[in-house]
Amino acid sequence: MGRITARRRVTRITVGREPVMRDDVLAVEEPLEIRVAGTALSITMRTPGHDFDLAAGFLVSEGVISRGDQLGAIRYCAGATVDGQNTYNILDVSLSPGVPKPDPSLERNFYMTSSCGLCGKASIDAVRTLSAYPVAHDHLSISPEFLVALPERLRAGQDVFEKTGGLHAAALFDGVTGELLVLREDVGRHNAVDKVIGWAVKEDRLPLRSTVLMVSGRASFELTQKASMAGIPMMAAVSAPSSLAIELASELGMTVVGFLRGDSMVVYSGEERIAAAASSEAPSRENVAAR
Amino acid sequence: MGRITARRRVTRITVGREPVMRDDVLAVEEPLEIRVAGTALSITMRTPGHDFDLAAGFLVSEGVISRGDQLGAIRYCAGATVDGQNTYNILDVSLSPGVPKPDPSLERNFYMTSSCGLCGKASIDAVRTLSAYPVAHDHLSISPEFLVALPERLRAGQDVFEKTGGLHAAALFDGVTGELLVLREDVGRHNAVDKVIGWAVKEDRLPLRSTVLMVSGRASFELTQKASMAGIPMMAAVSAPSSLAIELASELGMTVVGFLRGDSMVVYSGEERIAAAASSEAPSRENVAAR
Repeated sequence: MGRITARRRVTRITVGREPVMRDDVLAVEEPLEIRVAGTALSITMRTPGHDFDLAAGFLVSEGVISRGDQLGAIRYCAGATVDGQNTYNILDVSLSPGVPKPDPSLERNFYMTSSCGLCGKASIDAVRTLSAYPVAHDHLSISPEFLVALPERLRAGQDVFEKTGGLHAAALFDGVTGELLVLREDVGRHNAVDKVIGWAVKEDRLPLRSTVLMVSGRASFELTQKASMAGIPMMAAVSAPSSLAIELASELGMTVVGFLRGDSMVVYSGEERIAAAASSEAPSRENVAAR
Repeated sequence: MGRITARRRVTRITVGREPVMRDDVLAVEEPLEIRVAGTALSITMRTPGHDFDLAAGFLVSEGVISRGDQLGAIRYCAGATVDGQNTYNILDVSLSPGVPKPDPSLERNFYMTSSCGLCGKASIDAVRTLSAYPVAHDHLSISPEFLVALPERLRAGQDVFEKTGGLHAAALFDGVTGELLVLREDVGRHNAVDKVIGWAVKEDRLPLRSTVLMVSGRASFELTQKASMAGIPMMAAVSAPSSLAIELASELGMTVVGFLRGDSMVVYSGEERIAAAASSEAPSRENVAAR
Protein backbone atom coordinates (compact mmCIF):
# COMPACT_ATOMS: atom_id res chain seq x y z
CA MET A 1 0.00 0.00 0.00
CA GLY A 2 2.82 2.42 0.85
CA ARG A 3 0.41 4.52 2.85
CA ILE A 4 1.10 3.43 6.41
CA THR A 5 3.34 6.37 7.24
CA ALA A 6 3.24 10.04 6.27
CA ARG A 7 5.97 12.68 6.44
CA ARG A 8 5.38 16.03 8.08
CA ARG A 9 7.45 19.08 8.96
CA VAL A 10 7.44 19.48 12.75
CA THR A 11 9.16 21.59 15.39
CA ARG A 12 11.02 19.88 18.20
CA ILE A 13 11.18 22.05 21.32
CA THR A 14 13.38 21.43 24.34
CA VAL A 15 13.17 23.81 27.27
CA GLY A 16 16.10 26.23 27.24
CA ARG A 17 17.20 25.40 23.68
CA GLU A 18 16.46 26.76 20.23
CA PRO A 19 13.52 25.03 18.52
CA VAL A 20 14.55 22.65 15.74
CA MET A 21 12.53 22.16 12.56
CA ARG A 22 12.69 18.67 11.11
CA ASP A 23 10.78 16.07 9.12
CA ASP A 24 8.86 13.56 11.18
CA VAL A 25 7.10 10.32 10.28
CA LEU A 26 3.48 9.85 11.36
CA ALA A 27 1.37 6.72 11.50
CA VAL A 28 -1.37 7.08 8.91
CA GLU A 29 -4.96 6.90 10.12
CA GLU A 30 -7.75 6.74 7.54
CA PRO A 31 -11.36 5.55 7.63
CA LEU A 32 -12.20 2.12 6.24
CA GLU A 33 -15.78 1.34 5.36
CA ILE A 34 -16.59 -2.37 5.43
CA ARG A 35 -19.56 -3.44 3.32
CA VAL A 36 -21.12 -6.87 3.11
CA ALA A 37 -22.74 -7.55 -0.25
CA GLY A 38 -22.99 -3.83 -0.90
CA THR A 39 -24.45 -2.80 2.46
CA ALA A 40 -22.31 -0.67 4.80
CA LEU A 41 -21.67 -2.47 8.09
CA SER A 42 -18.99 -0.39 9.79
CA ILE A 43 -16.60 2.51 9.46
CA THR A 44 -13.40 2.16 11.45
CA MET A 45 -10.42 4.50 11.68
CA ARG A 46 -7.47 2.30 10.82
CA THR A 47 -3.90 2.21 9.54
CA PRO A 48 -4.06 1.25 5.84
CA GLY A 49 -2.54 -2.13 5.03
CA HIS A 50 -3.84 -5.68 5.52
CA ASP A 51 -7.32 -4.28 4.93
CA PHE A 52 -8.65 -7.65 3.74
CA ASP A 53 -7.44 -9.21 6.99
CA LEU A 54 -9.14 -6.41 8.92
CA ALA A 55 -12.45 -6.92 7.15
CA ALA A 56 -12.36 -10.71 7.49
CA GLY A 57 -11.39 -10.49 11.17
CA PHE A 58 -14.09 -7.93 11.87
CA LEU A 59 -16.67 -10.34 10.43
CA VAL A 60 -15.37 -13.11 12.72
CA SER A 61 -15.47 -10.77 15.74
CA GLU A 62 -19.04 -9.79 14.92
CA GLY A 63 -20.10 -13.42 14.52
CA VAL A 64 -20.94 -13.06 10.83
CA ILE A 65 -18.50 -15.81 9.80
CA SER A 66 -16.54 -18.42 11.72
CA ARG A 67 -14.83 -20.37 8.94
CA GLY A 68 -12.76 -19.47 5.90
CA ASP A 69 -15.15 -21.17 3.50
CA GLN A 70 -17.94 -18.76 4.51
CA LEU A 71 -15.93 -15.92 3.03
CA GLY A 72 -16.44 -15.09 -0.65
CA ALA A 73 -14.48 -12.40 -2.45
CA ILE A 74 -13.13 -9.22 -0.82
CA ARG A 75 -12.50 -6.27 -3.10
CA TYR A 76 -11.92 -2.54 -2.94
CA CYS A 77 -14.92 -0.52 -4.08
CA ALA A 78 -13.51 1.54 -6.93
CA GLY A 79 -14.13 4.62 -8.89
CA ALA A 80 -16.69 6.73 -7.07
CA THR A 81 -14.48 9.72 -6.32
CA VAL A 82 -14.68 12.95 -8.27
CA ASP A 83 -11.51 12.16 -10.21
CA GLY A 84 -12.33 8.47 -10.62
CA GLN A 85 -9.44 7.28 -8.40
CA ASN A 86 -9.76 4.27 -6.12
CA THR A 87 -9.37 5.52 -2.54
CA TYR A 88 -8.74 2.04 -1.13
CA ASN A 89 -10.90 3.08 1.80
CA ILE A 90 -14.01 1.03 1.03
CA LEU A 91 -14.13 -2.75 0.97
CA ASP A 92 -16.97 -4.94 -0.17
CA VAL A 93 -17.08 -8.49 1.17
CA SER A 94 -19.22 -11.19 -0.38
CA LEU A 95 -20.29 -14.18 1.71
CA SER A 96 -20.55 -17.76 0.46
CA PRO A 97 -24.00 -18.95 -0.61
CA GLY A 98 -26.17 -19.78 2.38
CA VAL A 99 -24.28 -17.59 4.89
CA PRO A 100 -26.79 -15.07 6.32
CA LYS A 101 -25.98 -11.39 5.87
CA PRO A 102 -25.68 -9.35 9.07
CA ASP A 103 -28.59 -7.06 9.78
CA PRO A 104 -27.31 -3.85 11.43
CA SER A 105 -30.82 -2.72 12.33
CA LEU A 106 -31.45 -6.04 14.06
CA GLU A 107 -28.32 -5.67 16.12
CA ARG A 108 -29.31 -2.17 17.16
CA ASN A 109 -32.72 -3.47 18.18
CA PHE A 110 -31.06 -6.22 20.16
CA TYR A 111 -29.06 -3.66 22.08
CA MET A 112 -32.11 -1.54 22.69
CA THR A 113 -34.29 -4.32 24.02
CA SER A 114 -31.76 -6.16 26.13
CA SER A 115 -29.92 -3.23 27.57
CA CYS A 116 -32.25 -2.41 30.45
CA GLY A 117 -30.70 -5.44 32.10
CA LEU A 118 -27.14 -4.21 31.73
CA CYS A 119 -25.16 -5.18 34.82
CA GLY A 120 -22.80 -7.93 35.88
CA LYS A 121 -23.66 -11.08 33.96
CA ALA A 122 -26.39 -9.33 32.02
CA SER A 123 -24.05 -6.59 30.84
CA ILE A 124 -21.73 -9.17 29.35
CA ASP A 125 -24.63 -10.89 27.62
CA ALA A 126 -25.89 -7.63 26.18
CA VAL A 127 -22.70 -6.62 24.42
CA ARG A 128 -21.15 -9.90 23.54
CA THR A 129 -21.36 -12.21 20.58
CA LEU A 130 -21.32 -15.95 21.23
CA SER A 131 -18.35 -17.86 19.88
CA ALA A 132 -18.58 -20.98 17.80
CA TYR A 133 -15.34 -22.12 19.47
CA PRO A 134 -15.33 -22.82 23.23
CA VAL A 135 -11.83 -22.50 24.70
CA ALA A 136 -12.43 -24.00 28.15
CA HIS A 137 -11.03 -27.40 27.22
CA ASP A 138 -8.00 -26.24 25.28
CA HIS A 139 -5.19 -27.97 27.19
CA LEU A 140 -2.46 -25.53 26.25
CA SER A 141 0.43 -25.38 28.72
CA ILE A 142 2.88 -22.50 28.57
CA SER A 143 6.00 -21.77 30.59
CA PRO A 144 6.67 -18.36 32.15
CA GLU A 145 9.99 -18.33 30.27
CA PHE A 146 8.14 -18.49 26.97
CA LEU A 147 5.77 -15.71 27.97
CA VAL A 148 8.35 -13.22 29.22
CA ALA A 149 10.06 -13.35 25.82
CA LEU A 150 6.92 -12.31 23.94
CA PRO A 151 6.96 -8.51 24.44
CA GLU A 152 10.42 -8.29 22.88
CA ARG A 153 9.37 -10.59 20.02
CA LEU A 154 6.33 -8.37 19.47
CA ARG A 155 8.41 -5.20 19.49
CA ALA A 156 11.01 -6.71 17.19
CA GLY A 157 8.32 -7.31 14.58
CA GLN A 158 6.83 -3.83 14.76
CA ASP A 159 8.23 -2.12 11.68
CA VAL A 160 6.07 0.96 11.80
CA PHE A 161 6.26 1.54 15.53
CA GLU A 162 9.99 1.97 15.23
CA LYS A 163 9.41 4.83 12.84
CA THR A 164 6.39 6.52 14.38
CA GLY A 165 6.00 5.39 17.97
CA GLY A 166 2.32 5.50 17.18
CA LEU A 167 1.05 2.01 16.54
CA HIS A 168 -0.44 -0.79 18.55
CA ALA A 169 0.40 -4.36 17.66
CA ALA A 170 -1.05 -7.82 18.04
CA ALA A 171 0.74 -11.08 17.34
CA LEU A 172 -0.29 -14.70 17.36
CA PHE A 173 2.13 -17.34 18.61
CA ASP A 174 1.87 -21.11 18.31
CA GLY A 175 1.83 -22.32 21.91
CA VAL A 176 3.31 -25.72 21.00
CA THR A 177 6.11 -24.87 18.57
CA GLY A 178 6.62 -21.33 19.87
CA GLU A 179 6.52 -19.97 16.31
CA LEU A 180 5.32 -16.43 15.56
CA LEU A 181 2.41 -17.03 13.18
CA VAL A 182 1.41 -13.48 12.32
CA LEU A 183 1.91 -9.90 13.55
CA ARG A 184 -0.19 -6.90 12.62
CA GLU A 185 0.01 -3.20 13.52
CA ASP A 186 -2.65 -0.51 13.62
CA VAL A 187 -3.48 2.82 15.26
CA GLY A 188 -6.29 0.89 16.97
CA ARG A 189 -5.65 -2.16 19.16
CA HIS A 190 -8.96 -3.70 18.16
CA ASN A 191 -8.01 -3.36 14.48
CA ALA A 192 -4.63 -5.01 15.06
CA VAL A 193 -6.42 -7.98 16.67
CA ASP A 194 -9.02 -8.11 13.88
CA LYS A 195 -6.19 -8.17 11.33
CA VAL A 196 -4.58 -11.14 13.12
CA ILE A 197 -7.87 -13.04 13.29
CA GLY A 198 -8.70 -12.13 9.70
CA TRP A 199 -5.37 -13.52 8.53
CA ALA A 200 -6.21 -16.74 10.34
CA VAL A 201 -9.73 -17.14 8.96
CA LYS A 202 -8.49 -16.44 5.45
CA GLU A 203 -5.91 -19.23 5.99
CA ASP A 204 -8.77 -21.40 7.27
CA ARG A 205 -7.03 -21.88 10.63
CA LEU A 206 -10.00 -21.25 12.94
CA PRO A 207 -10.39 -22.25 15.74
CA LEU A 208 -6.94 -21.05 16.81
CA ARG A 209 -6.35 -23.86 19.32
CA SER A 210 -3.17 -23.82 21.44
CA THR A 211 -2.23 -20.28 20.44
CA VAL A 212 -1.28 -17.20 22.46
CA LEU A 213 -2.42 -13.73 21.39
CA MET A 214 0.05 -11.05 22.50
CA VAL A 215 -1.16 -7.44 22.49
CA SER A 216 0.58 -4.16 23.15
CA GLY A 217 -1.15 -1.98 25.71
CA ARG A 218 -4.11 -3.07 27.80
CA ALA A 219 -6.51 -6.03 27.62
CA SER A 220 -10.08 -4.76 27.24
CA PHE A 221 -13.40 -6.57 27.14
CA GLU A 222 -13.48 -6.03 23.39
CA LEU A 223 -10.13 -7.75 22.81
CA THR A 224 -11.09 -10.68 25.04
CA GLN A 225 -14.27 -11.09 23.06
CA LYS A 226 -12.48 -10.97 19.72
CA ALA A 227 -9.99 -13.61 20.91
CA SER A 228 -12.84 -15.84 22.06
CA MET A 229 -14.61 -15.58 18.70
CA ALA A 230 -11.49 -17.09 17.07
CA GLY A 231 -11.09 -19.79 19.73
CA ILE A 232 -7.82 -18.36 21.14
CA PRO A 233 -7.28 -19.83 24.63
CA MET A 234 -4.70 -17.35 25.96
CA MET A 235 -4.18 -13.59 25.71
CA ALA A 236 -1.16 -11.76 27.09
CA ALA A 237 -0.90 -7.98 27.44
CA VAL A 238 1.90 -5.59 28.28
CA SER A 239 -0.42 -3.53 30.51
CA ALA A 240 -3.47 -3.99 32.72
CA PRO A 241 -6.74 -5.76 31.87
CA SER A 242 -10.14 -4.32 32.72
CA SER A 243 -12.57 -5.96 35.13
CA LEU A 244 -15.02 -6.95 32.40
CA ALA A 245 -12.24 -8.47 30.30
CA ILE A 246 -11.44 -10.77 33.22
CA GLU A 247 -15.09 -11.54 33.99
CA LEU A 248 -15.59 -12.65 30.41
CA ALA A 249 -12.31 -14.60 30.29
CA SER A 250 -13.16 -16.42 33.54
CA GLU A 251 -16.60 -17.32 32.30
CA LEU A 252 -15.18 -18.65 29.02
CA GLY A 253 -12.21 -20.41 30.60
CA MET A 254 -9.69 -18.22 28.77
CA THR A 255 -6.26 -17.41 30.24
CA VAL A 256 -5.43 -13.70 30.56
CA VAL A 257 -1.96 -12.50 31.52
CA GLY A 258 -1.26 -8.81 32.17
CA PHE A 259 1.70 -6.62 33.09
CA LEU A 260 3.98 -8.91 31.09
CA ARG A 261 7.20 -6.96 31.63
CA GLY A 262 10.78 -7.85 32.39
CA ASP A 263 10.80 -11.35 33.88
CA SER A 264 7.37 -11.27 35.49
CA MET A 265 3.62 -11.18 34.85
CA VAL A 266 0.25 -11.22 36.57
CA VAL A 267 -2.15 -14.07 35.75
CA TYR A 268 -5.77 -12.95 36.07
CA SER A 269 -7.64 -16.01 34.87
CA GLY A 270 -7.06 -19.53 33.58
CA GLU A 271 -3.79 -19.95 35.48
CA GLU A 272 -3.90 -23.72 34.94
CA ARG A 273 -2.38 -23.09 31.51
CA ILE A 274 0.74 -21.46 32.96
CA ALA A 275 3.17 -24.19 34.00
CA ALA A 276 4.58 -22.45 37.09
CA ALA A 277 1.19 -21.32 38.38
CA ALA A 278 -0.33 -24.76 37.93
CA SER A 279 2.61 -26.37 39.72
CA SER A 280 2.29 -24.01 42.68
CA GLU A 281 -0.96 -25.65 43.63
CA ALA A 282 0.36 -29.18 43.25
CA PRO A 283 1.96 -30.85 46.31
CA SER A 284 5.33 -31.02 44.58
CA ARG A 285 7.51 -27.94 44.95
CA GLU A 286 9.55 -28.69 41.84
CA ASN A 287 9.82 -25.87 39.38
CA VAL A 288 8.03 -27.03 36.25
CA ALA A 289 9.15 -25.19 33.16
CA ALA A 290 7.33 -26.65 30.21
CA ARG A 291 9.07 -26.37 26.88
CA MET B 1 -20.45 5.33 42.53
CA GLY B 2 -17.85 3.18 44.28
CA ARG B 3 -17.61 1.00 41.21
CA ILE B 4 -14.53 2.27 39.47
CA THR B 5 -12.24 -0.47 40.76
CA ALA B 6 -12.79 -4.17 41.42
CA ARG B 7 -10.75 -6.62 43.50
CA ARG B 8 -9.59 -9.91 42.14
CA ARG B 9 -7.40 -12.79 43.30
CA VAL B 10 -4.43 -13.06 40.92
CA THR B 11 -1.15 -14.95 40.64
CA ARG B 12 2.07 -13.04 40.23
CA ILE B 13 4.73 -15.06 38.46
CA THR B 14 8.40 -14.19 38.22
CA VAL B 15 10.73 -16.48 36.30
CA GLY B 16 12.71 -18.68 38.65
CA ARG B 17 10.62 -17.90 41.74
CA GLU B 18 7.57 -19.41 43.39
CA PRO B 19 4.26 -17.94 42.14
CA VAL B 20 2.60 -15.59 44.62
CA MET B 21 -1.17 -15.35 45.05
CA ARG B 22 -2.44 -11.92 46.00
CA ASP B 23 -5.38 -9.53 45.67
CA ASP B 24 -5.19 -7.10 42.80
CA VAL B 25 -7.24 -4.03 41.89
CA LEU B 26 -8.72 -3.80 38.40
CA ALA B 27 -10.18 -0.82 36.56
CA VAL B 28 -13.87 -1.46 36.09
CA GLU B 29 -15.21 -1.50 32.53
CA GLU B 30 -18.98 -1.63 32.01
CA PRO B 31 -21.27 -0.69 29.13
CA LEU B 32 -23.14 2.61 29.24
CA GLU B 33 -26.12 3.08 26.99
CA ILE B 34 -26.85 6.73 26.18
CA ARG B 35 -30.42 7.50 25.18
CA VAL B 36 -31.84 10.79 23.99
CA ALA B 37 -35.50 11.24 24.86
CA GLY B 38 -35.90 7.48 25.18
CA THR B 39 -34.13 6.47 21.96
CA ALA B 40 -30.82 4.60 22.22
CA LEU B 41 -28.01 6.56 20.56
CA SER B 42 -24.85 4.75 21.63
CA ILE B 43 -23.37 2.02 23.80
CA THR B 44 -19.85 2.66 25.00
CA MET B 45 -17.62 0.56 27.25
CA ARG B 46 -16.59 2.93 30.01
CA THR B 47 -15.35 3.22 33.58
CA PRO B 48 -18.38 4.05 35.77
CA GLY B 49 -18.30 7.49 37.35
CA HIS B 50 -19.00 10.95 35.91
CA ASP B 51 -21.54 9.29 33.63
CA PHE B 52 -23.56 12.50 33.23
CA ASP B 53 -20.39 14.26 32.06
CA LEU B 54 -19.76 11.42 29.62
CA ALA B 55 -23.26 11.61 28.16
CA ALA B 56 -23.22 15.41 27.88
CA GLY B 57 -19.75 15.40 26.31
CA PHE B 58 -20.72 12.67 23.86
CA LEU B 59 -23.63 14.84 22.69
CA VAL B 60 -21.25 17.77 22.16
CA SER B 61 -18.79 15.54 20.25
CA GLU B 62 -21.60 14.28 18.03
CA GLY B 63 -22.85 17.81 17.34
CA VAL B 64 -26.22 17.26 19.05
CA ILE B 65 -25.67 20.14 21.49
CA SER B 66 -23.14 22.97 21.69
CA ARG B 67 -24.36 24.93 24.73
CA GLY B 68 -25.34 24.05 28.28
CA ASP B 69 -28.83 25.51 27.89
CA GLN B 70 -29.61 22.95 25.17
CA LEU B 71 -29.30 20.19 27.75
CA GLY B 72 -32.40 19.20 29.71
CA ALA B 73 -32.36 16.59 32.47
CA ILE B 74 -30.03 13.59 32.60
CA ARG B 75 -31.18 10.60 34.62
CA TYR B 76 -30.41 6.93 35.09
CA CYS B 77 -33.03 4.68 33.54
CA ALA B 78 -34.15 2.58 36.47
CA GLY B 79 -35.78 -0.65 37.33
CA ALA B 80 -35.82 -2.88 34.30
CA THR B 81 -33.59 -5.66 35.67
CA VAL B 82 -34.94 -9.00 36.84
CA ASP B 83 -34.56 -8.01 40.48
CA GLY B 84 -35.73 -4.42 39.97
CA GLN B 85 -32.30 -2.92 40.78
CA ASN B 86 -30.98 0.16 39.00
CA THR B 87 -27.87 -0.89 37.10
CA TYR B 88 -26.65 2.68 36.56
CA ASN B 89 -25.66 1.58 33.07
CA ILE B 90 -28.36 3.37 31.09
CA LEU B 91 -28.78 7.13 30.90
CA ASP B 92 -31.61 9.05 29.35
CA VAL B 93 -30.92 12.64 28.30
CA SER B 94 -33.66 15.11 27.53
CA LEU B 95 -32.94 18.09 25.28
CA SER B 96 -34.33 21.58 25.75
CA PRO B 97 -37.43 22.49 23.72
CA GLY B 98 -36.55 23.25 20.10
CA VAL B 99 -33.25 21.31 20.08
CA PRO B 100 -33.51 18.68 17.30
CA LYS B 101 -33.08 15.04 18.32
CA PRO B 102 -30.26 13.15 16.60
CA ASP B 103 -31.33 10.70 13.93
CA PRO B 104 -29.01 7.67 13.95
CA SER B 105 -30.41 6.31 10.69
CA LEU B 106 -29.77 9.65 9.01
CA GLU B 107 -26.18 9.59 10.15
CA ARG B 108 -25.71 6.10 8.78
CA ASN B 109 -27.16 7.19 5.45
CA PHE B 110 -24.81 10.13 5.41
CA TYR B 111 -21.88 7.80 5.86
CA MET B 112 -23.13 5.47 3.17
CA THR B 113 -23.67 8.13 0.54
CA SER B 114 -20.57 10.21 1.14
CA SER B 115 -18.11 7.44 1.79
CA CYS B 116 -17.27 6.52 -1.80
CA GLY B 117 -15.26 9.73 -1.76
CA LEU B 118 -13.21 8.75 1.28
CA CYS B 119 -9.68 10.01 0.79
CA GLY B 120 -7.63 12.99 1.91
CA LYS B 121 -9.90 15.97 2.38
CA ALA B 122 -12.99 13.92 1.57
CA SER B 123 -12.19 11.30 4.18
CA ILE B 124 -12.09 13.96 6.87
CA ASP B 125 -15.39 15.39 5.68
CA ALA B 126 -17.01 11.98 5.69
CA VAL B 127 -16.32 11.17 9.31
CA ARG B 128 -16.25 14.53 10.94
CA THR B 129 -18.84 16.72 12.56
CA LEU B 130 -18.60 20.47 12.05
CA SER B 131 -17.92 22.53 15.15
CA ALA B 132 -19.90 25.57 16.18
CA TYR B 133 -16.65 26.99 17.59
CA PRO B 134 -13.79 27.82 15.20
CA VAL B 135 -10.42 27.79 16.97
CA ALA B 136 -8.22 29.38 14.27
CA HIS B 137 -8.34 32.85 15.82
CA ASP B 138 -7.83 31.83 19.44
CA HIS B 139 -4.70 33.83 20.34
CA LEU B 140 -3.55 31.55 23.13
CA SER B 141 0.21 31.70 23.80
CA ILE B 142 1.83 28.99 25.89
CA SER B 143 5.42 28.55 27.05
CA PRO B 144 7.29 25.26 26.71
CA GLU B 145 7.94 25.40 30.47
CA PHE B 146 4.20 25.30 31.11
CA LEU B 147 3.68 22.39 28.73
CA VAL B 148 6.45 20.14 30.03
CA ALA B 149 4.89 20.29 33.51
CA LEU B 150 1.52 18.96 32.29
CA PRO B 151 2.23 15.19 32.14
CA GLU B 152 3.21 15.18 35.81
CA ARG B 153 0.17 17.29 36.75
CA LEU B 154 -1.99 14.84 34.81
CA ARG B 155 -0.43 11.83 36.50
CA ALA B 156 -0.70 13.46 39.94
CA GLY B 157 -4.45 13.76 39.48
CA GLN B 158 -4.99 10.18 38.32
CA ASP B 159 -6.34 8.48 41.42
CA VAL B 160 -7.39 5.26 39.77
CA PHE B 161 -4.35 4.83 37.56
CA GLU B 162 -2.18 4.68 40.66
CA LYS B 163 -4.20 1.69 41.84
CA THR B 164 -4.78 -0.16 38.59
CA GLY B 165 -2.33 1.07 35.97
CA GLY B 166 -5.26 0.67 33.62
CA LEU B 167 -6.83 4.02 32.94
CA HIS B 168 -6.41 6.78 30.43
CA ALA B 169 -6.85 10.36 31.54
CA ALA B 170 -7.72 13.71 30.03
CA ALA B 171 -7.37 17.06 31.77
CA LEU B 172 -8.26 20.60 30.82
CA PHE B 173 -5.96 23.46 31.80
CA ASP B 174 -6.63 27.18 31.66
CA GLY B 175 -3.95 28.50 29.32
CA VAL B 176 -3.97 31.96 30.92
CA THR B 177 -4.04 31.23 34.67
CA GLY B 178 -2.46 27.78 34.35
CA GLU B 179 -5.18 26.31 36.58
CA LEU B 180 -6.26 22.67 36.25
CA LEU B 181 -9.96 22.98 35.48
CA VAL B 182 -11.00 19.32 35.38
CA LEU B 183 -9.49 15.85 35.11
CA ARG B 184 -11.31 12.67 34.17
CA GLU B 185 -10.21 9.03 33.88
CA ASP B 186 -11.61 6.17 31.86
CA VAL B 187 -10.61 2.85 30.28
CA GLY B 188 -11.20 4.63 26.95
CA ARG B 189 -9.33 7.79 25.97
CA HIS B 190 -12.31 9.06 23.99
CA ASN B 191 -14.52 8.64 27.06
CA ALA B 192 -12.08 10.56 29.26
CA VAL B 193 -12.17 13.43 26.76
CA ASP B 194 -15.97 13.29 26.50
CA LYS B 195 -16.17 13.47 30.31
CA VAL B 196 -13.98 16.59 30.31
CA ILE B 197 -16.08 18.26 27.60
CA GLY B 198 -19.31 17.18 29.27
CA TRP B 199 -18.21 18.75 32.54
CA ALA B 200 -17.59 21.97 30.63
CA VAL B 201 -20.89 22.07 28.76
CA LYS B 202 -22.78 21.35 31.96
CA GLU B 203 -20.94 24.32 33.52
CA ASP B 204 -21.90 26.33 30.43
CA ARG B 205 -18.25 27.05 29.62
CA LEU B 206 -18.27 26.30 25.88
CA PRO B 207 -16.42 27.36 23.78
CA LEU B 208 -13.34 26.44 25.80
CA ARG B 209 -11.24 29.36 24.59
CA SER B 210 -7.59 29.63 25.72
CA THR B 211 -7.51 26.13 27.17
CA VAL B 212 -5.13 23.20 26.74
CA LEU B 213 -6.42 19.62 26.66
CA MET B 214 -3.81 17.17 27.96
CA VAL B 215 -4.32 13.47 27.15
CA SER B 216 -2.47 10.34 28.19
CA GLY B 217 -1.42 8.15 25.30
CA ARG B 218 -1.75 9.07 21.66
CA ALA B 219 -3.61 11.84 19.81
CA SER B 220 -6.05 10.33 17.33
CA PHE B 221 -8.35 11.91 14.77
CA GLU B 222 -11.27 11.22 17.10
CA LEU B 223 -9.74 13.16 20.00
CA THR B 224 -8.82 16.09 17.75
CA GLN B 225 -12.39 16.20 16.52
CA LYS B 226 -13.84 16.09 20.03
CA ALA B 227 -11.56 18.94 21.11
CA SER B 228 -12.61 20.99 18.11
CA MET B 229 -16.30 20.50 18.87
CA ALA B 230 -15.71 22.16 22.26
CA GLY B 231 -13.60 24.99 20.81
CA ILE B 232 -10.35 23.84 22.48
CA PRO B 233 -7.41 25.48 20.62
CA MET B 234 -4.58 23.23 21.88
CA MET B 235 -4.17 19.50 22.57
CA ALA B 236 -1.07 17.94 24.09
CA ALA B 237 -0.37 14.20 24.20
CA VAL B 238 2.22 12.05 25.91
CA SER B 239 2.62 9.91 22.77
CA ALA B 240 2.40 10.22 18.99
CA PRO B 241 -0.45 11.71 16.97
CA SER B 242 -1.83 10.08 13.83
CA SER B 243 -1.61 11.61 10.37
CA LEU B 244 -5.34 12.34 10.17
CA ALA B 245 -5.34 13.97 13.60
CA ILE B 246 -2.73 16.43 12.30
CA GLU B 247 -4.48 16.95 8.96
CA LEU B 248 -7.65 17.90 10.79
CA ALA B 249 -5.83 20.08 13.35
CA SER B 250 -3.97 21.93 10.57
CA GLU B 251 -7.16 22.55 8.67
CA LEU B 252 -8.90 23.86 11.79
CA GLY B 253 -5.94 25.89 13.04
CA MET B 254 -5.62 23.84 16.21
CA THR B 255 -2.27 23.30 17.96
CA VAL B 256 -1.24 19.69 18.53
CA VAL B 257 1.79 18.77 20.63
CA GLY B 258 3.00 15.17 20.90
CA PHE B 259 5.74 13.22 22.68
CA LEU B 260 5.46 15.60 25.62
CA ARG B 261 8.05 13.90 27.83
CA GLY B 262 10.83 15.10 30.10
CA ASP B 263 11.73 18.63 29.05
CA SER B 264 10.83 18.35 25.38
CA MET B 265 7.97 17.97 22.90
CA VAL B 266 7.18 17.83 19.20
CA VAL B 267 4.83 20.46 17.77
CA TYR B 268 2.86 19.09 14.80
CA SER B 269 0.53 21.97 14.00
CA GLY B 270 -0.34 25.48 15.16
CA GLU B 271 3.17 26.20 16.46
CA GLU B 272 2.41 29.94 16.58
CA ARG B 273 0.76 29.31 19.95
CA ILE B 274 3.99 27.96 21.49
CA ALA B 275 6.11 30.89 22.60
CA ALA B 276 9.52 29.34 21.81
CA ALA B 277 8.46 28.03 18.41
CA ALA B 278 6.94 31.33 17.39
CA SER B 279 10.06 33.20 18.51
CA SER B 280 12.33 30.96 16.47
CA GLU B 281 10.89 32.37 13.30
CA ALA B 282 11.23 35.98 14.42
CA PRO B 283 14.48 37.86 13.64
CA SER B 284 15.31 38.18 17.34
CA ARG B 285 17.17 35.26 18.91
CA GLU B 286 16.03 36.03 22.43
CA ASN B 287 14.51 33.13 24.28
CA VAL B 288 10.89 34.08 24.82
CA ALA B 289 9.32 32.22 27.72
CA ALA B 290 5.78 33.42 28.13
CA ARG B 291 4.34 33.12 31.62
